[in-house]
Amino acid sequence: MAKVVTFGEIMMRLATPGYLRLVQANQFEVTYAGAEANVAVSLANFGIDVSFVTKLPSNELGQAVLRTLRQYGVDLSHICFGEGRLGLYFLETGFSQRPSKVIYDRANSVFALSKPQDFNWDEILKDATWLHFTGITPALGDNLVESCRNALNKAKEKNITVSCDLNYRAKLWSEEKARGVMSELVQYVDVLFANEEDTEKVFGIHADDSNIVEGKLSLAGYEQVCRRLRERFGFKKVAISLRESIVANLNGWSAVLLDDDDFYHSRQYTVHIVDRVGAGDSFAAGVIYGTIMGMKPQETLDFAVAASCLKHTIIGDFNQVTLEEVKKVAKGEGSGRVVR
Amino acid sequence: MAKVVTFGEIMMRLATPGYLRLVQANQFEVTYAGAEANVAVSLANFGIDVSFVTKLPSNELGQAVLRTLRQYGVDLSHICFGEGRLGLYFLETGFSQRPSKVIYDRANSVFALSKPQDFNWDEILKDATWLHFTGITPALGDNLVESCRNALNKAKEKNITVSCDLNYRAKLWSEEKARGVMSELVQYVDVLFANEEDTEKVFGIHADDSNIVEGKLSLAGYEQVCRRLRERFGFKKVAISLRESIVANLNGWSAVLLDDDDFYHSRQYTVHIVDRVGAGDSFAAGVIYGTIMGMKPQETLDFAVAASCLKHTIIGDFNQVTLEEVKKVAKGEGSGRVVR
Amino acid sequence: MAKVVTFGEIMMRLATPGYLRLVQANQFEVTYAGAEANVAVSLANFGIDVSFVTKLPSNELGQAVLRTLRQYGVDLSHICFGEGRLGLYFLETGFSQRPSKVIYDRANSVFALSKPQDFNWDEILKDATWLHFTGITPALGDNLVESCRNALNKAKEKNITVSCDLNYRAKLWSEEKARGVMSELVQYVDVLFANEEDTEKVFGIHADDSNIVEGKLSLAGYEQVCRRLRERFGFKKVAISLRESIVANLNGWSAVLLDDDDFYHSRQYTVHIVDRVGAGDSFAAGVIYGTIMGMKPQETLDFAVAASCLKHTIIGDFNQVTLEEVKKVAKGEGSGRVVR
Amino acid sequence: MAKVVTFGEIMMRLATPGYLRLVQANQFEVTYAGAEANVAVSLANFGIDVSFVTKLPSNELGQAVLRTLRQYGVDLSHICFGEGRLGLYFLETGFSQRPSKVIYDRANSVFALSKPQDFNWDEILKDATWLHFTGITPALGDNLVESCRNALNKAKEKNITVSCDLNYRAKLWSEEKARGVMSELVQYVDVLFANEEDTEKVFGIHADDSNIVEGKLSLAGYEQVCRRLRERFGFKKVAISLRESIVANLNGWSAVLLDDDDFYHSRQYTVHIVDRVGAGDSFAAGVIYGTIMGMKPQETLDFAVAASCLKHTIIGDFNQVTLEEVKKVAKGEGSGRVVR
Amino acid sequence: MAKVVTFGEIMMRLATPGYLRLVQANQFEVTYAGAEANVAVSLANFGIDVSFVTKLPSNELGQAVLRTLRQYGVDLSHICFGEGRLGLYFLETGFSQRPSKVIYDRANSVFALSKPQDFNWDEILKDATWLHFTGITPALGDNLVESCRNALNKAKEKNITVSCDLNYRAKLWSEEKARGVMSELVQYVDVLFANEEDTEKVFGIHADDSNIVEGKLSLAGYEQVCRRLRERFGFKKVAISLRESIVANLNGWSAVLLDDDDFYHSRQYTVHIVDRVGAGDSFAAGVIYGTIMGMKPQETLDFAVAASCLKHTIIGDFNQVTLEEVKKVAKGEGSGRVVR
Amino acid sequence: MAKVVTFGEIMMRLATPGYLRLVQANQFEVTYAGAEANVAVSLANFGIDVSFVTKLPSNELGQAVLRTLRQYGVDLSHICFGEGRLGLYFLETGFSQRPSKVIYDRANSVFALSKPQDFNWDEILKDATWLHFTGITPALGDNLVESCRNALNKAKEKNITVSCDLNYRAKLWSEEKARGVMSELVQYVDVLFANEEDTEKVFGIHADDSNIVEGKLSLAGYEQVCRRLRERFGFKKVAISLRESIVANLNGWSAVLLDDDDFYHSRQYTVHIVDRVGAGDSFAAGVIYGTIMGMKPQETLDFAVAASCLKHTIIGDFNQVTLEEVKKVAKGEGSGRVVR
Repeated sequence: MAKVVTFGEIMMRLATPGYLRLVQANQFEVTYAGAEANVAVSLANFGIDVSFVTKLPSNELGQAVLRTLRQYGVDLSHICFGEGRLGLYFLETGFSQRPSKVIYDRANSVFALSKPQDFNWDEILKDATWLHFTGITPALGDNLVESCRNALNKAKEKNITVSCDLNYRAKLWSEEKARGVMSELVQYVDVLFANEEDTEKVFGIHADDSNIVEGKLSLAGYEQVCRRLRERFGFKKVAISLRESIVANLNGWSAVLLDDDDFYHSRQYTVHIVDRVGAGDSFAAGVIYGTIMGMKPQETLDFAVAASCLKHTIIGDFNQVTLEEVKKVAKGEGSGRVVR
Repeated sequence: MAKVVTFGEIMMRLATPGYLRLVQANQFEVTYAGAEANVAVSLANFGIDVSFVTKLPSNELGQAVLRTLRQYGVDLSHICFGEGRLGLYFLETGFSQRPSKVIYDRANSVFALSKPQDFNWDEILKDATWLHFTGITPALGDNLVESCRNALNKAKEKNITVSCDLNYRAKLWSEEKARGVMSELVQYVDVLFANEEDTEKVFGIHADDSNIVEGKLSLAGYEQVCRRLRERFGFKKVAISLRESIVANLNGWSAVLLDDDDFYHSRQYTVHIVDRVGAGDSFAAGVIYGTIMGMKPQETLDFAVAASCLKHTIIGDFNQVTLEEVKKVAKGEGSGRVVR
Repeated sequence: MAKVVTFGEIMMRLATPGYLRLVQANQFEVTYAGAEANVAVSLANFGIDVSFVTKLPSNELGQAVLRTLRQYGVDLSHICFGEGRLGLYFLETGFSQRPSKVIYDRANSVFALSKPQDFNWDEILKDATWLHFTGITPALGDNLVESCRNALNKAKEKNITVSCDLNYRAKLWSEEKARGVMSELVQYVDVLFANEEDTEKVFGIHADDSNIVEGKLSLAGYEQVCRRLRERFGFKKVAISLRESIVANLNGWSAVLLDDDDFYHSRQYTVHIVDRVGAGDSFAAGVIYGTIMGMKPQETLDFAVAASCLKHTIIGDFNQVTLEEVKKVAKGEGSGRVVR
Repeated sequence: MAKVVTFGEIMMRLATPGYLRLVQANQFEVTYAGAEANVAVSLANFGIDVSFVTKLPSNELGQAVLRTLRQYGVDLSHICFGEGRLGLYFLETGFSQRPSKVIYDRANSVFALSKPQDFNWDEILKDATWLHFTGITPALGDNLVESCRNALNKAKEKNITVSCDLNYRAKLWSEEKARGVMSELVQYVDVLFANEEDTEKVFGIHADDSNIVEGKLSLAGYEQVCRRLRERFGFKKVAISLRESIVANLNGWSAVLLDDDDFYHSRQYTVHIVDRVGAGDSFAAGVIYGTIMGMKPQETLDFAVAASCLKHTIIGDFNQVTLEEVKKVAKGEGSGRVVR
Repeated sequence: MAKVVTFGEIMMRLATPGYLRLVQANQFEVTYAGAEANVAVSLANFGIDVSFVTKLPSNELGQAVLRTLRQYGVDLSHICFGEGRLGLYFLETGFSQRPSKVIYDRANSVFALSKPQDFNWDEILKDATWLHFTGITPALGDNLVESCRNALNKAKEKNITVSCDLNYRAKLWSEEKARGVMSELVQYVDVLFANEEDTEKVFGIHADDSNIVEGKLSLAGYEQVCRRLRERFGFKKVAISLRESIVANLNGWSAVLLDDDDFYHSRQYTVHIVDRVGAGDSFAAGVIYGTIMGMKPQETLDFAVAASCLKHTIIGDFNQVTLEEVKKVAKGEGSGRVVR
Repeated sequence: MAKVVTFGEIMMRLATPGYLRLVQANQFEVTYAGAEANVAVSLANFGIDVSFVTKLPSNELGQAVLRTLRQYGVDLSHICFGEGRLGLYFLETGFSQRPSKVIYDRANSVFALSKPQDFNWDEILKDATWLHFTGITPALGDNLVESCRNALNKAKEKNITVSCDLNYRAKLWSEEKARGVMSELVQYVDVLFANEEDTEKVFGIHADDSNIVEGKLSLAGYEQVCRRLRERFGFKKVAISLRESIVANLNGWSAVLLDDDDFYHSRQYTVHIVDRVGAGDSFAAGVIYGTIMGMKPQETLDFAVAASCLKHTIIGDFNQVTLEEVKKVAKGEGSGRVVR
């Protein structure tokens, strides 16, 4: 039986209602979100046994996070608690030519200040078969680089599959710092999630000019990036989600996957967007799910793209869809006819 | 002076706000809805004298239904009351590749359990010139088949025009049961509303393969279905609304009409959707209105399609538009410029 | 380690916002509630290991119930699922001289139609130390009388403490029917919760006239009722909550407890009310908690009354308070000074 | 069969949500209200045949008024329409020491500018048995004095009972103007509603000093005012509602009635207030109802005070209560226990 | 240092929530709006020193306007106050084929009834470098024609640049009246904003038939209209915004500018619309801003079109965007990618 | 002309709607608040020229604060900006026996990390006549002790009146630390605001046992505390607000004032509470206002208590009342009768 562990920060998300701007808002919609928590919830919704590991403040806000995650049946028994604050972020949802805007207020959170000894990886990973984290976690501080290193070492020891989403955030660390840390950490990684910008900024990997058409990468270009990543780090799989932003509320959405030596690409969906935050995480969760369930690479990719396509229609970072709904879209039933 | 009577169930509709999913909702928007009530409200909004016949619970919820329908000036004097429950349905509105979802909770409603003797058709139809019902009413139980039969017999006796929308619902009855009942009941029907799926499932009527292009019916195919229905049952008019689902919030919308021996089709609207539930009913109401008012067939069809096109922009099942608004769109003014 | 099992129905609660009447409402606030689920949530909030047993519909509404209960950490592993409807109730909150109004729509719910074999009591009660139910469960049908009987027999076999809240509901069954069933079932009960009206209606037990002062029972009268219940059925504890309704939003609230042969009464709180539904359940949970934790009778009673006093200030049926908050009020700190 | 006609203005009421001040509000709650419309709705809710006469703008806002009033089954067939504006008022609800605040924006409304010939009293009063208006209607302009005069003359001709609520509004006319007009109009009036301030300001009628205790009128004082009104104008009944304002959200509420030569007073309710606007109108409607139904004076008064006591708990000007609810409170059941 | 003065009315805007129709609404969203106030807020948001001149009621609603405008740092020191009402308008937002609908209720507002002597132009324009008004202000009455004339005379005296947006409103005055008044007033104007319909209706100026393609003006046609306006009145700049209404929520948006003798046109944006009211004002503000800042004509036009493109995504009439945001879109970054 | 300067932090306040608990909330109501900002807004509302000095983040949240404060006409020209976060606090409003709960998340805010050189006191205090701060400001860090010291030195130099509210917050600093710092800082203070607990904790000053009646201080006791404070530090005025907490939503509210050698006490209001946060600040503002305006001590005290009594009915920390409203209550008109 598969058991996935994800490790990272979960924040309170404060979003303006409708299309109000931050400076106009008198109310915020409150949900909870974080790259690794988002993956955990997606997997739990698909029926996978998943444990989310973090540190939370020992106050009502920490309780609110627990309640929220409990709804999805995510295992929370390895979360630790302490005095401190919950990280948070503010979101204003874009429309047409106006982009969405995110303001982070996550510095000095109880998780960012957590100590390596807060996490007993031997116990956390006892029955685990998969460990997932993103580049955000080590970006929060050297203490968390150390925690990641501990986790990865223990994972290697236990022969646990490891996946990582590069998720480079310029506000959290410099490219140099990221390169140093991530070059080390991805050595433990089997499955890498990235986008073109991430790989350029973190690893200096990019496609040849010949693969750029009208300023955008061709499929061949994405394939080249995947293959170069695999060459350098030996990943078993590299998956890249591709977003074509027409306007803020209307995007093209597809993905590519390099699995061993074979390259796959998905169909492209034109998605009308309710809330796109967390789409990348829902894609990663889809690939993890497909891999765990033994789907073939193309099927895995199609499943992951369908899942993340649906995420764009869900309010909040969490992908609140069922396995059946994803499979139906993956099969091509994406025309949105009423289900009675 | 025309007087229309519609007969069926009205339910409480509990819809999640915005694009929240049912499992996310902490609030529901409450409206009231039902295929035949929707038609009645449309007609009342167009200035037609219309009476809605049903059975309601004798409690506050029944009162709330009365209040709601009274707003539109629908005649409610033939509604009867009794102990029991109000049927209801839950609605989550789809977006992009995620379809809308409807959960019915209508079993054992006070209407579904009504007795034929609850309705005195002699009195109800005293001054009526038109009777409308849908396939949902007889699907609710043999008692309601009997009530429909009583109504239709009395209508025939009084030479009242009868219209019926097939509205096949697999959750309410089997195709076999529907075929048996509807084959009998439509013998009284002058104007039939249907869609291709309905006619296939209820009557086994479909177009020849040569009329199918890329998996969809051609106009010729729809014409063939209309003509076969007319041949078998002798309908004066057969009207079919055509929905092309691009994504859940963006549809093509048009319709065809066989009037005596002549076949008509409307222009197709690309509709951006606020709420599509009840669109079919608003189309039926448009055809009934045009027919009553002596419009020519093409004008009737264009009016009905314009009316139901507008319905997609109205919250709730009821088509809250005026005659003037429909006529303006039917004339081609559908570009949505501000009216000051 | 104590482990409590509660058995009963959980419904969707549809409440009008603020002080709107049902006939005025365009929105409902959605929560989930039921006498035995309310007790389970209270106990979980106090840190007790508790399992809630019911049957739910296998659709999104059943999922919504699961999500809700999971938030509190209630064990849901013994809930079974099936096709059918979720019971529900409508609530309009009273104010001043206008009382709150409840309309039940729970007939034919998937739980009301559950079969005795849906519940494997041997497994459900495996590690249980306490079983709680209320008179509502057997009132839902003979199938549930049988399920209760099965549970109680198994509880007796396993020497599990049993508590029952009489909760007589005239809309569910007659006094005669209730008397017959409950007289049998309470033979298994150790701790009885009731109010004066319940005991009169279900068992015909009441106080002597001399104990009635100005039309209301004196404390001596309540003591007499408790003692008569104990005499007839041999309960170890009888607890009665006392509500003095000044106006709908301002009540006196206290309780009495007969523990073995000793009679206790609590202080009376003057409660300003936000939402009083579920207060009785929160009182029962308080008594169960105190008993499990080995509190003395007076301490148990004071804890239970403080807990249920606080319930009046919480929106929804569930008593969303912490152990510390209850203990603080029980100690006399109920003046509501800001906690910073 | 009684048939009541009320004549006056109905306005849009724009109230801030909760206890927000006007300068804080980003939203308004929209209802419709007016002294005579409020009386009409109360009577319709009690099952009385009632017609409301006014003039409305022929736009969507006029339609919204129609829809609103139709909900209650008020007859609207004598309402006339024209180009113009709908009067409106802004409301901020007080609390504790902060009073409610009303800002009127009703000048130049289509009703205030209506012409006497807009109202065909012969037809309007054809089957009427009772005519009700308030001092607000003639205060809106000489055109409306004339319309009132026309209505009253026709009422006298047809031997219709006439009631009037003085409702003096200093912002609409001066005391002198009011005295001149009202002294004439009340000559047609059988039942007068007033408060002490009204009678002082409009008619210069007040109680002797000996009837003033601690700055407030004694019951004897109110009796004297009633009798002096009756002496001067020959009213059959004079009813005065008495409000004791403790704080904005907590009032004492009672009333007195002089019926022929007999003086009655009601019990005083302590009302916790949700929304007190329209309470006086609901009292007048209660007296009209009791009189029409042939209740005895004390019963009429108790009914009217109970009805208006309940009004304080209802959002909006309209008294959305049933006959049964009022009678229950009038009988003394005002403790607000939950009705299940 | 530039200092802009704008002169006109500001109204309360009462908009239905979401896509509810006016007849469905139980709530209104409250903002404040007016053509000249909208321009003032846009300029203040861009950092320009701007004063808005109007007359407000001396009550809470006037205070609410002050508070609102103060948020943006608009100078309000020349606003005068008096007894009277605040103008208002009702808005229902269109979607797809259903257009937005505006109902004005602005007659007899305290501004419409203001006297020329309420405005001391010598003082108001003391340090001003630019004066802006629209055709709505003189349309409100001869008193306001006089006030405009006073302002324009003083502006000429002080050599202040004057801009005017024709903004013809058929509900406020006839074409004849408008022609007479505006022909006089635009003699003082340097920069004219208009649309094709305005110039035809107010000045009888239109393009030759040869410039009409498929019923719409070609770019050459717009150029011709601009040049004819310049010829007749000697404007330094003429700017026309071009809206192509696909459906109510999806429009093409671009503009043309005649600057001295040179004609410019912008790119066309396809805008998905949240709220389009005020877009024209935000365009005018953009042109004024560019001119003041010494941008070149093409840059000014691109800036103004980008600013007004963004306005379509902002709730309320005011264009709540920053200089940086506009410049980013003007540079071509309008794909709506998330800003983190 | 008086000009007041207040110096401190302003936070975002995130309050649950209605009486929802923090763990229940899916939305927060957003306002902005802080002890010294609250005082500034109160004074601006009373027409006093007031400047609020703080440091804000240079992002949208800082802009939102500016917008908010600008509404009231507070001078913001001395606010400085920098990279960093805005402090915030979470609020759940208590009811009955359940207290309000505040969770602060203000550590490391851009203000808490501000440097003394961020504030140029020579310029800030140029025309000032009054400086106000509270004990919260120096509690935020030694940098802010230094900033306070700089401000106070400059104030002394310029002979500016200084007021201080002790506002001891145990979560921000220890009693020892507070004693050391505040003993120094209050040497510059003319007017001290405190409560009994503050003076005990910060200065170890308390009343003799003989002044304690039933566990509470008598008026004589409060007088003694005031006199001891004056003796030790030489304050010109000492003002203490007295809250008697009956339940969370019903409090007694009054105050005492030692002015030179004379002791005054106010009447006690029974306040029904909408929102009590900020009441102490509104009291301080009232005393400052009365003093500035030259009111006599009793009048000043009565004004301040009336103002802060009204604050309890206002949503948000800011006291959104007018001078006229406060004066009316201070005169004894606090019965809450409707103002039309």
